[in-house]
Amino acid sequence: MFKHTRALQFNAKPDRPDPLMARKLQEALGGQWGEMTGMMSYLSQGWASTGDEKYKDILLDTGTEEIAHVEMISTMIAYLLEDTPIYEQEEMIKKDPSLAKVMGGTDPEHGLVHGLTAGLTNPNGAAWNTGYVTSSGNLLADMRFNVTRESQARVQVSRLYHMTRDEGVRDMLKFLLARETQHQLQFIKAQEELEAKYGIVVPGNMDDIQHSEYSHVIMNFSDGEGSRAFENQIAKDGQKFTYQENPEAMGGVPKTKPASSELHNDQG
Amino acid sequence: MFKHTRALQFNAKPDRPDPLMARKLQEALGGQWGEMTGMMSYLSQGWASTGDEKYKDILLDTGTEEIAHVEMISTMIAYLLEDTPIYEQEEMIKKDPSLAKVMGGTDPEHGLVHGLTAGLTNPNGAAWNTGYVTSSGNLLADMRFNVTRESQARVQVSRLYHMTRDEGVRDMLKFLLARETQHQLQFIKAQEELEAKYGIVVPGNMDDIQHSEYSHVIMNFSDGEGSRAFENQIAKDGQKFTYQENPEAMGGVPKTKPASSELHNDQG
Amino acid sequence: MFKHTRALQFNAKPDRPDPLMARKLQEALGGQWGEMTGMMSYLSQGWASTGDEKYKDILLDTGTEEIAHVEMISTMIAYLLEDTPIYEQEEMIKKDPSLAKVMGGTDPEHGLVHGLTAGLTNPNGAAWNTGYVTSSGNLLADMRFNVTRESQARVQVSRLYHMTRDEGVRDMLKFLLARETQHQLQFIKAQEELEAKYGIVVPGNMDDIQHSEYSHVIMNFSDGEGSRAFENQIAKDGQKFTYQENPEAMGGVPKTKPASSELHNDQG
Amino acid sequence: MFKHTRALQFNAKPDRPDPLMARKLQEALGGQWGEMTGMMSYLSQGWASTGDEKYKDILLDTGTEEIAHVEMISTMIAYLLEDTPIYEQEEMIKKDPSLAKVMGGTDPEHGLVHGLTAGLTNPNGAAWNTGYVTSSGNLLADMRFNVTRESQARVQVSRLYHMTRDEGVRDMLKFLLARETQHQLQFIKAQEELEAKYGIVVPGNMDDIQHSEYSHVIMNFSDGEGSRAFENQIAKDGQKFTYQENPEAMGGVPKTKPASSELHNDQG
Amino acid sequence: MFKHTRALQFNAKPDRPDPLMARKLQEALGGQWGEMTGMMSYLSQGWASTGDEKYKDILLDTGTEEIAHVEMISTMIAYLLEDTPIYEQEEMIKKDPSLAKVMGGTDPEHGLVHGLTAGLTNPNGAAWNTGYVTSSGNLLADMRFNVTRESQARVQVSRLYHMTRDEGVRDMLKFLLARETQHQLQFIKAQEELEAKYGIVVPGNMDDIQHSEYSHVIMNFSDGEGSRAFENQIAKDGQKFTYQENPEAMGGVPKTKPASSELHNDQG
Amino acid sequence: MFKHTRALQFNAKPDRPDPLMARKLQEALGGQWGEMTGMMSYLSQGWASTGDEKYKDILLDTGTEEIAHVEMISTMIAYLLEDTPIYEQEEMIKKDPSLAKVMGGTDPEHGLVHGLTAGLTNPNGAAWNTGYVTSSGNLLADMRFNVTRESQARVQVSRLYHMTRDEGVRDMLKFLLARETQHQLQFIKAQEELEAKYGIVVPGNMDDIQHSEYSHVIMNFSDGEGSRAFENQIAKDGQKFTYQENPEAMGGVPKTKPASSELHNDQG
Repeated sequence: MFKHTRALQFNAKPDRPDPLMARKLQEALGGQWGEMTGMMSYLSQGWASTGDEKYKDILLDTGTEEIAHVEMISTMIAYLLEDTPIYEQEEMIKKDPSLAKVMGGTDPEHGLVHGLTAGLTNPNGAAWNTGYVTSSGNLLADMRFNVTRESQARVQVSRLYHMTRDEGVRDMLKFLLARETQHQLQFIKAQEELEAKYGIVVPGNMDDIQHSEYSHVIMNFSDGEGSRAFENQIAKDGQKFTYQENPEAMGGVPKTKPASSELHNDQG
Repeated sequence: MFKHTRALQFNAKPDRPDPLMARKLQEALGGQWGEMTGMMSYLSQGWASTGDEKYKDILLDTGTEEIAHVEMISTMIAYLLEDTPIYEQEEMIKKDPSLAKVMGGTDPEHGLVHGLTAGLTNPNGAAWNTGYVTSSGNLLADMRFNVTRESQARVQVSRLYHMTRDEGVRDMLKFLLARETQHQLQFIKAQEELEAKYGIVVPGNMDDIQHSEYSHVIMNFSDGEGSRAFENQIAKDGQKFTYQENPEAMGGVPKTKPASSELHNDQG
Repeated sequence: MFKHTRALQFNAKPDRPDPLMARKLQEALGGQWGEMTGMMSYLSQGWASTGDEKYKDILLDTGTEEIAHVEMISTMIAYLLEDTPIYEQEEMIKKDPSLAKVMGGTDPEHGLVHGLTAGLTNPNGAAWNTGYVTSSGNLLADMRFNVTRESQARVQVSRLYHMTRDEGVRDMLKFLLARETQHQLQFIKAQEELEAKYGIVVPGNMDDIQHSEYSHVIMNFSDGEGSRAFENQIAKDGQKFTYQENPEAMGGVPKTKPASSELHNDQG
Repeated sequence: MFKHTRALQFNAKPDRPDPLMARKLQEALGGQWGEMTGMMSYLSQGWASTGDEKYKDILLDTGTEEIAHVEMISTMIAYLLEDTPIYEQEEMIKKDPSLAKVMGGTDPEHGLVHGLTAGLTNPNGAAWNTGYVTSSGNLLADMRFNVTRESQARVQVSRLYHMTRDEGVRDMLKFLLARETQHQLQFIKAQEELEAKYGIVVPGNMDDIQHSEYSHVIMNFSDGEGSRAFENQIAKDGQKFTYQENPEAMGGVPKTKPASSELHNDQG
Repeated sequence: MFKHTRALQFNAKPDRPDPLMARKLQEALGGQWGEMTGMMSYLSQGWASTGDEKYKDILLDTGTEEIAHVEMISTMIAYLLEDTPIYEQEEMIKKDPSLAKVMGGTDPEHGLVHGLTAGLTNPNGAAWNTGYVTSSGNLLADMRFNVTRESQARVQVSRLYHMTRDEGVRDMLKFLLARETQHQLQFIKAQEELEAKYGIVVPGNMDDIQHSEYSHVIMNFSDGEGSRAFENQIAKDGQKFTYQENPEAMGGVPKTKPASSELHNDQG
Repeated sequence: MFKHTRALQFNAKPDRPDPLMARKLQEALGGQWGEMTGMMSYLSQGWASTGDEKYKDILLDTGTEEIAHVEMISTMIAYLLEDTPIYEQEEMIKKDPSLAKVMGGTDPEHGLVHGLTAGLTNPNGAAWNTGYVTSSGNLLADMRFNVTRESQARVQVSRLYHMTRDEGVRDMLKFLLARETQHQLQFIKAQEELEAKYGIVVPGNMDDIQHSEYSHVIMNFSDGEGSRAFENQIAKDGQKFTYQENPEAMGGVPKTKPASSELHNDQG
């Protein structure tokens, strides 16, 4: 169960409105790797967790924090959209041609659909969806996802930082950068502990089942020579990579049967 | 540019048809973490790469191999769907009630839409889409995604292995397990090299910019006590995690302005 | 069965082309609350109806009218896109910088995909989909949806009105505003009749089944004090709202079992 | 900002596992009108709110409660999936043919993708997406949406109630029914207050602009006679509905111009 | 503008309920190639048409007919769902194991979401969306789409015919088969006339612009020898196909520049 | 199985960067009719094929070529995005107002999400999805799809050609135009052979089953008179079209039963 406090986790107020920056910030809110994805992945993983309390708890802590990040970015976007004109464009552009940028580059749905507040989409207006979320039941696989989520998100927040000079926006982004540092590091820590317990290759205990003659072979399907650099290097599981210059097709030519006439697969 | 050989990379022929297993294998083909996701992520990352040849090449090698995996699984699904009846169900079930499973559990679109061949969807018929794909330009962030992709996929292939006793299907799955071992290990190797070069936290060189006072604090937003276990542990960047029992709301209560009357935001 | 007449229900001709306004009008055509949503919701509800003829008929009347609105807006968009240049941009902008707005703000798919005619998307190019449609079988729940549809649509049409000065566009919007007034009012009328028959809370006759001790309690999960204003007010079903300052977690801490080893839920 | 407590808002434990019921409960979690839709709509509206505190607060209260409902249903689904076999099906069905139902009717992704825990989809595996969410800036339009959300959700929860005999599941559903009663009633109350302030037809103050000669006319586009029943009745705004037996096409036949040759609109 | 008549275009009443067939018929309603796709494609093309009246009219005629087909199939599905039990399953299956099929194979959303009436999805519950629709402005390209739509739809209707023995369902399918014959033939006729006017290759008059040395070469990228059969055959534009055994890569190895440091494309 | 060569099939290098053209080219990559759609449709059809080798082979040849086109266009987009500024916009626009176009019209996700390389979306950022792909098992129906795919794509490539003056971009487009000529012609050839074998109307051998009295009737559902032009013309199957001025509703008024009370279909 959750309780909400009206005060934000951190400042989310820009120095001045900027509807183009509002549009770009939608990535951090409703993009593939935005806060919605963190929030719903960590909460789902935490609720699904049946193991060590420390992992369950860090997932629920972080998932709960991400709701606050969704709140902060939604708030920032609403501030950035304040006073955006929805008409008078021709006249204004004639006075200040740089405004044409604003007219052309804003998200028309910010005004039309949301009354100049945040949507739950990316900057191109694509609806956020749970196809971005991962909760697999395998905690190591999910920790790797979480490290990825925080890494991709921090790359995007860094790019957003360079896209504005607004000190208020930057202040919030600096906070998010720090939290994404923490979240990367905590999930890496958990990942390493789980690797120590279950092995490097996920999931553990399928090694005797797999066709292990193919489990350390770099297969060269592209004419670049670069991948040969991995040859004879030691993989993290302690075994050596081998290199196959010209991998062969081992499976033969398949020959499936024609379907029954009721399917009308007239195949020539 | 690509060339195709008709022979498959590995055997993809079941011992006997099984339309329910065909449906389940769609996850490995067109699910969030299926081969399509690997194929298009690695190829896109490879094409986008401007750096060290060895990374560009291993991405293109692996992306090209994944097209062959899409081919193998598509072929296997078509074999598993051979002879699936599309009618005569009542009569058949009366003779063998276990057939009711088949009637109820198969994907009706396998017959109706694809003439008993593979679709490019997951087992619930959701279209595969490029919202599953990642190519960010930041190679370390992408390598972390790739390790995740191979980990999630190998968990699913392991589950698929336990869902069948068909030795033909299992033979193919054992091969995929091995290749996903190799792909995990090669991407982990690349990831470690890139971490050595750019630092653990992605992206590098934003550390001076972020609000570093929040970059190593475990914030306790959930009443579980488990996350305290990380307190004072050493993060992978060499710094120590601190623990905040009761994180405060630092941002104040936001107060955005009402929008202009043209937006009809009648707010009460 | 349907018959079509070539003449439009109302004028749909602008005074002059305006590709940015064309883009914005896509919201009224293919957005979440656009005419497609009205058309397919009301027709589906009408076809599903098994009850009083007057509701079935008003749904089919209105659904049929909405096809004409889809037609009018599609026509208007095609007019607004007439003569939109697809090249010569640099030169033109140098002469008239305000044109940069047009170049940047138009939907590139209007030209590329539709040859400068309407698409069936929102202004951000997101495909309209039947996830926006509702037909539940419960007529009161659906009438509430219909009132909402007409309300959201009329808010958007009002905003569109303020976004243009073109008298031709405004003429059509004034007609849509009036029809959305009528549709709100007719669905509110139907809603009130159904409330009188089945009760305010949908669906009726579950009141004896629900845990009624929680059915009129305002629970205060946020630190704002505003919701206390509802305390002791009379709800529309005649009962009084109570207020719970600090709602407790009544459900205990859940503890699900670990899954079997075949699922590889390695949970730490 | 949010805090989480591990204890659930209410009991969410079934008497026994039932993977088919787990699948059906996904509707209440990740369907069009499920708890995710309530949670993100109310929170977004609350964050967007600039008006009367009582509305902002009730939205944030209720949005925060819905996170707890997402948590409860996710937990219930995980319980219901306990011990679901992922193989041994043939043998088991031969002993107990009624098991064929389970084999055929479960969601294969529950096991394959989520390790027998909840997903964030509907029962057909469609990803939940923010195309289901509404936050328009116009509070009355949004309150109407909220009443609809709670009505549709309560219809579905009522149907779910009849689909099971498990007393544990029913206990949770009885609680949800009560809360959805409260939420319907509170949003109806807010809606009525806003109607009293802004008028019945949303948005207010466009009445002088619209073509009012069409704002109270029931137009008969379908051959049913039922809609005539509304004729001369008094609409909620106090005016009388009129009835048009045979609405005419007032708009003339449109004639758009052919596009320039660069568009290759070869039209015959 | 449209008018609706309550009587259906053709019989749409089954001999008896069959919820599994109801599910399968959803393909013809809301699948990729279902009636919704025909309806919205032909209407959109008709509204976009600026050329010869006969093409505009046949598009509008057929688009209008397809609304009636959506109506017929929706009605048929509602009939097929009559009396579907939503509980009592265990007991019933014990008496008649063949019922397990029904329990497992029905769409749970038919009852839960639509109250046992039709949805606007395919049999796997995927929402129909306008990504299936085509209206390009180029009439020949669109006529080819239309011929394809009618061909794919008629294949599916033929398969549906073999999936049932219900004479009522079959009666409706026989009518749809006939109409899809007519629609194929009328669009083929239009296509041939447009080919006679504009040339076989769409769009016309780009032949002088294209690199014509590659416009009739069968390039052999796969090791099969089958495509050589086209060598020296006469293409429909009167020219001869040539065959390239081993197509070369003519484009050189690309070398894009690293992005600026603000993008954090750390590439190794 | 596939092998990759680093050299491109054809030149894919522009004369100079142009981020707006980069955005537009996304249509040819990740739009409904882009190269991804060709690639996955032809490969899927080829893998599904059980008939004449020449069709299987031409499908696999062409599908394999399309991967190279995906590669070429991805590369071109990356070149076009080189040096795109992600900030300094205000200052730059003041110097050169025509830059406002660029600022407003570029895809913000090109920089934010992909580090200025290609995404797998259309120009509006909609994710490519396999709802665009067709592989039905019926080869003639699929060849008609393939002809359509190449026709729609060539219309779009022609429009793209007119949207740029960059000779490098045009060089690549001229090559794609030629290949799409070849692909149209080869699929038309296959289509004609299959028509000769199976008949014009797809699928063959349902003619005795359909209600043939409706199989050649042009039904006039729209008040245009244009479609009468087809009357008495000879359809491609050798029969004559008839014309029905005023098609009647033959199906009667449907009357479905109310659902059981457990569904709460309160219908008034």
